[in-house]
Amino acid sequence: MHKIEVNVGVSVTEANRRQAEENREHLDEHGIRSIDILGAVGSGKTMLIEKLTPVLKARGYKVGAIVGDCYGDDDYKRIHALDIPTQNLNTGTECHLDAHMVHHALHKLPLDDIDVLLVENVGNMVCPTDFPVGSHKRVVIVSVTEGDDVVNKHPAMFRECEIGIINKVDLAEAVGASVERMERDMRRHNSNIRIIKANLKKGVGIEELADMLIT
Amino acid sequence: MHKIEVNVGVSVTEANRRQAEENREHLDEHGIRSIDILGAVGSGKTMLIEKLTPVLKARGYKVGAIVGDCYGDDDYKRIHALDIPTQNLNTGTECHLDAHMVHHALHKLPLDDIDVLLVENVGNMVCPTDFPVGSHKRVVIVSVTEGDDVVNKHPAMFRECEIGIINKVDLAEAVGASVERMERDMRRHNSNIRIIKANLKKGVGIEELADMLIT
Repeated sequence: MHKIEVNVGVSVTEANRRQAEENREHLDEHGIRSIDILGAVGSGKTMLIEKLTPVLKARGYKVGAIVGDCYGDDDYKRIHALDIPTQNLNTGTECHLDAHMVHHALHKLPLDDIDVLLVENVGNMVCPTDFPVGSHKRVVIVSVTEGDDVVNKHPAMFRECEIGIINKVDLAEAVGASVERMERDMRRHNSNIRIIKANLKKGVGIEELADMLIT
Repeated sequence: MHKIEVNVGVSVTEANRRQAEENREHLDEHGIRSIDILGAVGSGKTMLIEKLTPVLKARGYKVGAIVGDCYGDDDYKRIHALDIPTQNLNTGTECHLDAHMVHHALHKLPLDDIDVLLVENVGNMVCPTDFPVGSHKRVVIVSVTEGDDVVNKHPAMFRECEIGIINKVDLAEAVGASVERMERDMRRHNSNIRIIKANLKKGVGIEELADMLIT
């Protein structure tokens, strides 16, 4: 986030925290479990929703989604094609979703028809960390193609998340990345983090993730 | 960037713009041409410097570097190993370099021993766009492993940059990405952008980039 010292009575992050608490209450009233999906551009956030949704449906859950991007509807179209209630959020020059944007999206979704709400944040490993939106769990996904130093470079992101997914492990050798280093760095930043080694394209890791999210 | 309406006499981006102009004057006084390198985590920014530096050296230029990251010295160590003057900038929770940080780094570098200064920004496709640091050219690098919709999602980044590099084109088929779509989207955002299709690991595209940067 961009640090700036100003006296506006309440800080931007504090105002966001309060709105996030309201969102959480709103979700709880409707019995919805909400999951944040965080990670860089191209890490696999949208594919995670594409692969996770049918698995959750098969377990009897009704799924909904909020899809954040700076611009365009590339991700939205992919998620909407899953035939679930979906809201697109374009952030323009903003580099993250915030609780207020999600508040508005919640009011447009049929909340009584959703058990699990998947919230895909803007592709960014830094800024979304400081802006919780009210979800019950936060999942971060990194891909080996980002380089095996990507975890070490972003400690705050991994401290914030309960689950860390290492995606595209099948490409590790081709790009010269050490999955072991990525795991080790995750545990160093957050000793409680639960780690999944995934190849989302082939569905590897999805059942394991569904277990972690629902239990 | 995080939008917030506050009356502080001068906006954060305006203050940054002024400091960037001072940096540019400082660079010009020393006859240094400075190049920003922008792009997501793992797109290939550090490898670009690793591959470009020997090519520039072979053409008779003295190279220096400023390396930005939220945390750690993974990239710094790789660049420092090139045996060029290098400054590491850790931004903490900040998601981009700004002109003030670069101002301090410039004062620590032996400016009379540098002809070309390569400035690697924090891995982020959004925030650095709004914070020029005073460089003469801005280069953005994206990798096909980020998905071929990455260009469409980030119009501001491509409007800002004179050169767009599409990296890891050898992996396009494996990840199902259309290089043609990425090129088309770049030209749609910025009809003047110069595009290089690269495989930096094998050095493909580097001589072409050196030509564009120096002429």
